[in-house]
Amino acid sequence: MSATRVQLISPRTLRLLSPGRSALFLPGGGGPHRGGGVPGFRSLIFPSLSSSFSSPGRALSSLSTTRRGLPKTKMSDNGTMSRGKVLTIDNMNPTVKKVEYAVRGPIVQRAVELEKELSEGRKKPFAEVIKANIGDAQAMAQIVFLKYKNKDAKSRACRILNSCGGNSMGAYSASQGIGSVRQDVARYIERRDGGVPCKPDNIYLTTGASDGIVTMLKLLVCGEGATRTGVMISIPQYPLYSAALAELSAVQINYYLNEEKCWSLDIGELQRALDEARLHCNPRALCIINPGNPTGQVQSRECIEDVIRFAAKERLFLMADEVYQDNVYAEGCQFHSFKKVLFEMGPEYSETVELASFHSTSKCYMGECGFRGGYMEIINMDDDVKDQLTKLLSVRLCSPVPGQALMDLVVNPPQPGEPSYERFIKERTSTLSALAEKARLTEQVLNTVEGIRCNPVQGAMYSFPRITIPEKAIQEAKKLGQQPDMFYCMKMLEETGICLVPGSGFGQREGTYHFRMTILPPTDKLKILLNNVKEFHQRFTQQYS
Amino acid sequence: MSATRVQLISPRTLRLLSPGRSALFLPGGGGPHRGGGVPGFRSLIFPSLSSSFSSPGRALSSLSTTRRGLPKTKMSDNGTMSRGKVLTIDNMNPTVKKVEYAVRGPIVQRAVELEKELSEGRKKPFAEVIKANIGDAQAMAQIVFLKYKNKDAKSRACRILNSCGGNSMGAYSASQGIGSVRQDVARYIERRDGGVPCKPDNIYLTTGASDGIVTMLKLLVCGEGATRTGVMISIPQYPLYSAALAELSAVQINYYLNEEKCWSLDIGELQRALDEARLHCNPRALCIINPGNPTGQVQSRECIEDVIRFAAKERLFLMADEVYQDNVYAEGCQFHSFKKVLFEMGPEYSETVELASFHSTSKCYMGECGFRGGYMEIINMDDDVKDQLTKLLSVRLCSPVPGQALMDLVVNPPQPGEPSYERFIKERTSTLSALAEKARLTEQVLNTVEGIRCNPVQGAMYSFPRITIPEKAIQEAKKLGQQPDMFYCMKMLEETGICLVPGSGFGQREGTYHFRMTILPPTDKLKILLNNVKEFHQRFTQQYS
Repeated sequence: MSATRVQLISPRTLRLLSPGRSALFLPGGGGPHRGGGVPGFRSLIFPSLSSSFSSPGRALSSLSTTRRGLPKTKMSDNGTMSRGKVLTIDNMNPTVKKVEYAVRGPIVQRAVELEKELSEGRKKPFAEVIKANIGDAQAMAQIVFLKYKNKDAKSRACRILNSCGGNSMGAYSASQGIGSVRQDVARYIERRDGGVPCKPDNIYLTTGASDGIVTMLKLLVCGEGATRTGVMISIPQYPLYSAALAELSAVQINYYLNEEKCWSLDIGELQRALDEARLHCNPRALCIINPGNPTGQVQSRECIEDVIRFAAKERLFLMADEVYQDNVYAEGCQFHSFKKVLFEMGPEYSETVELASFHSTSKCYMGECGFRGGYMEIINMDDDVKDQLTKLLSVRLCSPVPGQALMDLVVNPPQPGEPSYERFIKERTSTLSALAEKARLTEQVLNTVEGIRCNPVQGAMYSFPRITIPEKAIQEAKKLGQQPDMFYCMKMLEETGICLVPGSGFGQREGTYHFRMTILPPTDKLKILLNNVKEFHQRFTQQYS
Repeated sequence: MSATRVQLISPRTLRLLSPGRSALFLPGGGGPHRGGGVPGFRSLIFPSLSSSFSSPGRALSSLSTTRRGLPKTKMSDNGTMSRGKVLTIDNMNPTVKKVEYAVRGPIVQRAVELEKELSEGRKKPFAEVIKANIGDAQAMAQIVFLKYKNKDAKSRACRILNSCGGNSMGAYSASQGIGSVRQDVARYIERRDGGVPCKPDNIYLTTGASDGIVTMLKLLVCGEGATRTGVMISIPQYPLYSAALAELSAVQINYYLNEEKCWSLDIGELQRALDEARLHCNPRALCIINPGNPTGQVQSRECIEDVIRFAAKERLFLMADEVYQDNVYAEGCQFHSFKKVLFEMGPEYSETVELASFHSTSKCYMGECGFRGGYMEIINMDDDVKDQLTKLLSVRLCSPVPGQALMDLVVNPPQPGEPSYERFIKERTSTLSALAEKARLTEQVLNTVEGIRCNPVQGAMYSFPRITIPEKAIQEAKKLGQQPDMFYCMKMLEETGICLVPGSGFGQREGTYHFRMTILPPTDKLKILLNNVKEFHQRFTQQYS
């Protein structure tokens, strides 16, 4: 590595970029390679980052390997003798080490460092860091029905507060969530699904959708060796899934979406992945993200029927991640909930197939991510398992009550005739049509660049274009121990201030490279962003060709 | 069991009360005994609870045992053939089955059922259910500095909002928490600890304290068999610890607090527990709750020094659960943070002993439980482990931002000279002195009852009195497959509407029985409550003597 690079990236970031880090979707992949360090290295190069936050001896102690029963004695910076740590990278939970979450990985940490450097007056080839790595709708400014001061908004607030203990959001709620909110969720689902019945008792309010997904996976995991639970996830995937499966030591079963056919799901590929997995684990669940994250595709009704038939035939528990159900833009595309399709397929399916569906306050047109609200609906779950689910959730007492209240607003927006209705519809329409416009714009601009190919963004909030990386750049990345698309994105960040997530963080077919970029920035900003991406790609291609 | 009992308790509650359920603090204890069931049983006896929420075939399906590879075919209620569930009680995650959380266990479920029955006009020997099972300060009405409309409250709100992405609490924050809030937490800790330095980079904002505790335990667990991580916890304990350890398949190492000496911690007992545990596991961490939950003791400075010396000598990672740090009532008692004592013991300890300390918005005088706010401070943690901690927390994106904002208010209350100061101090003083009064009152009234012995409630929010249960009642409980104190508390609930948590849910020396009761209800209500407990105990003793 060159001296210039070292000064741009902190040792911690470098460590995080070390080989093995990005292989998150390979089941049983080893932990990261442990690079060496030099005592005081960080504080020499990054006084602003480390002087006030690093205690003496920390850099040194990270070099020391302590094994159980063999406490090491070493010299600390000030010359006194001290023993090695009780908890070290070598004796910590190995499943935690395998967890990776690219959306907030090293590239984001570097973006934060760059922001700090900018604010300290350091010169950069850009004026601001643009974080297009994460679907944070609120930070990019979306709807705020919450802040309406109309009578109906106030009466809604009162109704929710009346359902809270002590009439306060500061009180714990029932572990499953506030009863009246769960009723509103159930009514929403019934409206959404054309009258298919929904029982409030099957609704669990969760801390964002992530909490529900992790909890369901927890219930499913058992067995050892060849009987260990396997869970099928799409590749590309949202890395919450790989992270949770790594932590639970479950077997990740990859099925690949078809990039050539607009990231569609192919039953033949599901069958291939399942058959291969059955040789070494016990596949028990199938996870679907629709609309897709990071891929942005919207599944057809036929595809969903096929998936349900497949799950029934192969006895798989279905997990439908439907947090982008309100984010559908492409003409001819429509959101079909797994539950609705399941029930329309008749009792052979609707009375047998076990399904958990997830929704969130963080996405759709509200985009209230910071409140960490969400729900899951469970269908056909065994009664005793449901008791266990409720018990498990009770340990964390309840999901955040303000998030529960927001979930109520998401599922129960202002109705015709209510004072807030017109303003709400106007804002919703403009938010959604702006997103549709940005989805088109993103596809269009990226496809003008030689070496970038972008599928239509039919839904959700991201584009996931394929990029051609020249062989020379691939070799350069290898030398640095980086995935080629991590090298590409890191270079883009350093040169343009644009923070994207490399495709390797989501998984992709070997030898292909992508990045995920959110379409959320305001249109004028997005145009500049896309243009900068274009120029960077051209420069990068030229440099390494 | 008598027919009357069956009509009072639902089959689900009965199942939850089955033998083996309460043995939560025995490492490796088996799952609950599976009682049989009768199809439709629930819907015959509890139409109001099951008719609208139970799908046909649910009661039946819970009888069916499905094993991997052997899908069972069975008749459903409507006569069609259907297969067994993919996910059943027999093939679900066995560690989840071992999780128990008494604070929201079967007795609370029964309390909720009773509330419903009362609201439906069913006659009971009481007019309302009083939930004295949980420390929900807000539901019992506490301070609401949040709602002040003074200028300083508003400017504080603005400052926090300015630190949020898009100036909105609806945006994700950094995974570790909002920077300015972490700075305020660090300053608070420095003030609290007489100037011992605190680095914002060592502060993690969490979803209540529970999230921080579980995350720290996750990092610590590794090894198999005799090298499996063991974690020392006090008995009685707060059942979050036993639940988390069960889920992580870590070995729970019990050390018993000394009830005769006001629930104090004895180093000899720590040593005994550790030495015995070393024969079959690898003890790596020591958890302390101070002030104590459920026991209400406040540790002396000497005791804390001894614990720190013990942890250093035995190479244990210290976890200090200090969520009740502002709840100290008894004269002569004072809260000493583990960190302050650690640093005052000199560099031999302050530079080596690894410590995580936890705090929460849910307790103290604010009591904002529903927001799920909290922080942890880590001290002397290995640098690489810290990276892993940050990474692990990034998977859940961030803790709820409103909870982070509230944490800021907890650590940064109105200062002298600010418009809100006087009102705040008045409210805080009156809240804390009312709690002190209620702590005294509880101890005093309970100790007037023959067969109840209550230690002083020095701090926290609970009393944990010892109760004498007559031999006849113990036999009666055994017949029902219940722990004697569960039998006692369930009977109290049915007869008086008072919801307490049996001591068996927290752990206690064999042959002793207790209950946990929060002291939070308003004084006049608490007086009635205590009197009803007294009368119930006398009646119960008479009935079974």
